[in-house]
Amino acid sequence: MTADHHSLLVVGSVALDDLDGPFGRRPDVLGGSASYISVAASYFTDRVQLVAVVGDDFPSEHKRFLGARGIDLDGLETQPGTTFRWRGRYAEDLETRETLDTQLGVFAEFRPHLTPKQSAADLIFLGNIDPVLQLDVLDKCRCPKLVACDTMNFWINGKLDELRKVLERVDILLVNDEEARQLAGVHNLVRAAEAIRMMGAKSVIVKRGDSGAILFHESGVFAAPALPLAEVLDPTGAGDSFAGGFMGSLARAAAVTPDAIRRAMIYGSVLASFCVEDFSLDALRDLSLAEIAERFKSFYDLTHFEHLDL
Amino acid sequence: MTADHHSLLVVGSVALDDLDGPFGRRPDVLGGSASYISVAASYFTDRVQLVAVVGDDFPSEHKRFLGARGIDLDGLETQPGTTFRWRGRYAEDLETRETLDTQLGVFAEFRPHLTPKQSAADLIFLGNIDPVLQLDVLDKCRCPKLVACDTMNFWINGKLDELRKVLERVDILLVNDEEARQLAGVHNLVRAAEAIRMMGAKSVIVKRGDSGAILFHESGVFAAPALPLAEVLDPTGAGDSFAGGFMGSLARAAAVTPDAIRRAMIYGSVLASFCVEDFSLDALRDLSLAEIAERFKSFYDLTHFEHLDL
Repeated sequence: MTADHHSLLVVGSVALDDLDGPFGRRPDVLGGSASYISVAASYFTDRVQLVAVVGDDFPSEHKRFLGARGIDLDGLETQPGTTFRWRGRYAEDLETRETLDTQLGVFAEFRPHLTPKQSAADLIFLGNIDPVLQLDVLDKCRCPKLVACDTMNFWINGKLDELRKVLERVDILLVNDEEARQLAGVHNLVRAAEAIRMMGAKSVIVKRGDSGAILFHESGVFAAPALPLAEVLDPTGAGDSFAGGFMGSLARAAAVTPDAIRRAMIYGSVLASFCVEDFSLDALRDLSLAEIAERFKSFYDLTHFEHLDL
Repeated sequence: MTADHHSLLVVGSVALDDLDGPFGRRPDVLGGSASYISVAASYFTDRVQLVAVVGDDFPSEHKRFLGARGIDLDGLETQPGTTFRWRGRYAEDLETRETLDTQLGVFAEFRPHLTPKQSAADLIFLGNIDPVLQLDVLDKCRCPKLVACDTMNFWINGKLDELRKVLERVDILLVNDEEARQLAGVHNLVRAAEAIRMMGAKSVIVKRGDSGAILFHESGVFAAPALPLAEVLDPTGAGDSFAGGFMGSLARAAAVTPDAIRRAMIYGSVLASFCVEDFSLDALRDLSLAEIAERFKSFYDLTHFEHLDL
C-alpha cells in the first residue's frame, strides 16, 4: 500500500459484455464501467477500492484478474442471480453502436454498502448508476478531497431532479458530448459546460471519442486530443478507461492542482488509447509503467508547440 | 513589401455566397476558397498574390477590400458574365450543410495565367479547382519552396488520375476527414493519411471542423485542437481560413522547419476560430496582430501541459 497516494473509491457496474462488430463476435467478456475505471486507475496506485455487485455466474477468473491488479475487492459483492449483461453491435466504421440487449440481473437491486475504510476514501468516482445511489454513496463518504461522477441519457431523462442534487455535490462531471448537450439543453459545448457548472459541478469534462476530451473549469479550458491510432479494435470502455486513468493519476499526484488535472487528462487519454487497441479489457491486462510513460510522451509530441512571437 | 517574407501564390475561387441557416439569410456575400485563404494569409505577410476569376457583376467593394488587405490582385481577372455563386443552407446545429445551388459562371472557363512574378512565388496554394488546372499552374511555377493543395469529392470521383499526378508534386495536401477517407479508400485516418502520402504528398493535413486538424508527416503527427467557442455564427470558410493562416504564417517564417509547421497549424486554427465568429469574411476584415497573438496564446493555454515523470 503506497501511503502517500490518495485512496480512490470506484462505485459502478461490473458486467459481462457480448460484443459484435467488424472484429467478430466476442461473447461473455469482462465489461462494466467500474471494471474499466478501476483497472485503468490500478496502473497509478494500489489504493483503488471497487464497490459493485456481480451474480453467482460471474467467472472467478475475472475476479482473480481484478485482484491481481491490486484492486481492493472487499466491496465487490456476489449476489444470487445473474451478472449485469450488455449486448451491443458496432457499425463497420466503429463510430456508432447499437445496444441489442441489457439484462440488469443482480445490478437492479444494487445498494452500495460502504465499510469504514471505503467511506474514508480521498477520491470518489461515482460511475454511471442511479443518481439516488450516487447520493447515498456521497452521504456515506466522510470527507472526500474530490468527487467525480458520470451519468447517461437514461438518468437525465428519468431522474433529473436527483441528478441535479448529485451535481451540487461533485467536483467533476465526466460525460460525453451528447450527454452534456442533453443535460444542459443547449448544443454549443462551451455553453453546455457553463450551464452544467451553474448546476453545481465545479468542472466538466466532455468526452468526444476520437476527437479527445475537453475540460471546462474555473481557470479555463484544456483540450486533450485522442491519439490517432492506425488500429482500433474495440472502442468499448474507452471513456471509462479515460476516467480511470484520470482518477488514478490524480490519486498518485501529491495534490490536485490545475497542472495535475491537465496531466490527468492526458493520462486518461493514454489509458483510453491503449483500451481501444484490443477487445474488452485485454489491452489493460499487463501494461508496464514504461509503456504508459512512453505513450504520455507521444501525447506530448502530438500537441507540443513553441510559443514564439509573430 | 516585406522582402524577408516568402511570397505566396493562391489560386482558386472567388465567389458570391448566398447563405441560409439559424443565423438568418445572407445573400450575395463575399465567398470562395481563394478569398478566405488570401485574406487569412494577408495578416501574416503583404506578399500574397491572388489568381482567380470573377464576372463583371462582382461588386467593386469586394475588390477594394481584398486590395486594402494588401493582396496583389494582378491575377484577379474580370470576365464578361457572372461570378461563381454558391447557395447553401446550414442545419440548426451548424454541423451539416446542404448545397442548394452552384452556378459556376465565368469560373467554368477559368484558365490561370501566371505573370513572371506569380510563377516565381516561393509558396503555392492550389485551391480546390480542377486538378488539370492545378497541374497547369505547377508547370508554370519555376521553383516553389513549398506546394500545398486542396481538393474535394467532385475531383476525387471525376478526375482521380489527374489528381494523383498533382499529389506526386505537392508537399502538403489539406483536406477534410471525409475527403481523406474517400481519396484513400479507407476509414481509419492514420491509414488514410499514410495511403495519401504513398501517393506522393509529403504531408497530409486532415481538417476536422470543431475537432481541430491533424498533420501527418514523416516526422510524426501533430494535432491542433479547435478553440471551443461559445458563439459560432457561420462556419463557411473555416477550413479555408485555416489554410490561409497556415500558409501565411509559413510565408512569414524564416524557414519551413517542423517547428514552424506546428506553429502554422496553430495560426491556421487561430484564423479559423475568428472566421466562424461572424458571417462570410466579416470577422477577418479588421483583426490586429495583437488579437492574433492573444488568440495564439489561448491555443497554447488550451493544450499546454508539463511533461513530468510518473
